[in-house]
Amino acid sequence: MGERSIRIRVPGTSANCGPGFDSLGLACTVYNELTLSLTHEPRLDIKVTGEGAADIPVDERNMVWRSVQYLLEQAQEEDHFQGCIMRMENHIPLSRGLGSSAAAIVAGLRAANVLIDNRFNRREIMQFATELEGHPDNVGPAIFGGFTVSIVNNGKVDTCSFLPKVKLKLVAAVPDFPLDTKLARQALPEVIPFKDAVFNVGHASMLVAALCRGNERYLRHSLTDAMHQNYRAKLIPGLQEVFRMARYAGALGAVISGAGPTIRAFVLERDQCASAVADAMVAGFAQNGVKANALVLDVDTKGAHIVNEWT
Amino acid sequence: MGERSIRIRVPGTSANCGPGFDSLGLACTVYNELTLSLTHEPRLDIKVTGEGAADIPVDERNMVWRSVQYLLEQAQEEDHFQGCIMRMENHIPLSRGLGSSAAAIVAGLRAANVLIDNRFNRREIMQFATELEGHPDNVGPAIFGGFTVSIVNNGKVDTCSFLPKVKLKLVAAVPDFPLDTKLARQALPEVIPFKDAVFNVGHASMLVAALCRGNERYLRHSLTDAMHQNYRAKLIPGLQEVFRMARYAGALGAVISGAGPTIRAFVLERDQCASAVADAMVAGFAQNGVKANALVLDVDTKGAHIVNEWT
Repeated sequence: MGERSIRIRVPGTSANCGPGFDSLGLACTVYNELTLSLTHEPRLDIKVTGEGAADIPVDERNMVWRSVQYLLEQAQEEDHFQGCIMRMENHIPLSRGLGSSAAAIVAGLRAANVLIDNRFNRREIMQFATELEGHPDNVGPAIFGGFTVSIVNNGKVDTCSFLPKVKLKLVAAVPDFPLDTKLARQALPEVIPFKDAVFNVGHASMLVAALCRGNERYLRHSLTDAMHQNYRAKLIPGLQEVFRMARYAGALGAVISGAGPTIRAFVLERDQCASAVADAMVAGFAQNGVKANALVLDVDTKGAHIVNEWT
Repeated sequence: MGERSIRIRVPGTSANCGPGFDSLGLACTVYNELTLSLTHEPRLDIKVTGEGAADIPVDERNMVWRSVQYLLEQAQEEDHFQGCIMRMENHIPLSRGLGSSAAAIVAGLRAANVLIDNRFNRREIMQFATELEGHPDNVGPAIFGGFTVSIVNNGKVDTCSFLPKVKLKLVAAVPDFPLDTKLARQALPEVIPFKDAVFNVGHASMLVAALCRGNERYLRHSLTDAMHQNYRAKLIPGLQEVFRMARYAGALGAVISGAGPTIRAFVLERDQCASAVADAMVAGFAQNGVKANALVLDVDTKGAHIVNEWT
């Protein structure tokens, strides 16, 4: 790589967190790494290793490259830089509800932004990322780390990020089948009972208060949902059983991670039951004929960050 | 009053706070005071002065007395104490969306509880109050003070209370007509668009994060709603105009207080524009043929509390 090159690490994320559909998100310690250099000539040299490598296009359709292009267009640099050399080392499972798409978008935007001398600030990157992804709940924590609350008003996104005041372990039970986010969205109704909306407004508010203020009791009571999880249950065999078994093994609660099929359990660090919860969740899936793999993770505190830079 | 007597002060409250329908609430510095003593013989000596005195029944239908009875029944003391002497001095406007009903319930429960030697703790009082009121969003701040987030799961209520980290002035523009909460609830639909529910989940979460963390920018962006205010606009002439004029005069935002018709504006203390906002809101109502009175208040930090006790 003769050009200036940048290496970026971006965390995986869980959107929704139960009651916070399209609004809440949490970054966790599983990462994709991107090494990027831009070229003046129109060429695409893209190599992917790790999770989903066989399924990720390495041509014009590549999501990281499309995000790089998007940023270059915003900066009116698309004629100056017409190609790239890209190496991706992926650890975030693909199409499992752990934010691999958001990580690709954020990696592309953030890396290209450094290479054009940080023309845009983090809020602007957040705006671009939301436009590319279509919703803010994964790209928020991928950029800022920690826990995020995002809203969109007339197309403009606002994201508040903070580190939870409760020491958590995050257990992700990842089934061996992918679930297309579009399909998971089609499972949702266009209208819902008013009372279900009230349920989620209250529970999402309580979840934010609990994490902001470090209240474990309220956290335990707020990880439930009435807006999307039941509608998606048919897409994830064993959902309710995995929820139950995670709680039974000591988790505060469990939720669908993003659009699924991954199920995410929240565990108090001091309860020291993360691996028991992981085993219980994998067993719950197995009872329903689903092979799953469990990851025991922490909350990522940094968001997308530069690992190493050289010229 | 020969019997042991207790004097309780209970704050007025604004439920909903924009996006937080039936979940969020805020206590403010306008109070009702109740002096209560219980009698063994079945008698009711109830006198009311101040706001709404002419409209408040002083017989078996009296809400404070019904709450006293409810608490005595929970304690199995209803045979022991069959009557009361009660003096109410009301400053919270009646049926205006400032929690006068919640204040009555909380006053009755809290005062009677002291007189039976605090048989119940605050959480139990919160449960009883929610059962009597039917929803937790006013009784929460009336009991705990400050800002509250409440959820109900299988009939059991949970309330998280905290003091906002933003120094606020609360301006209440109180129209001269009452609005029955039942009527205001009938104006709401049984189902709502999924996207409107998402809007409120995000905005309520952002409002809680902003108040917990003291972020003025996010507070400004989170005081909007898509679930109930538009449906109730027809019941409150000038609603949108008063919202606009409050913002124009410097408020962070304005919302319907509870079921209305009072409109509540949130103002930063350091902006020193509370009285300008008050004037603007009264003028906005006047332009729509509504006579209104403005109160400039602070956040109440105590909730229901004993003023004086003697035996």
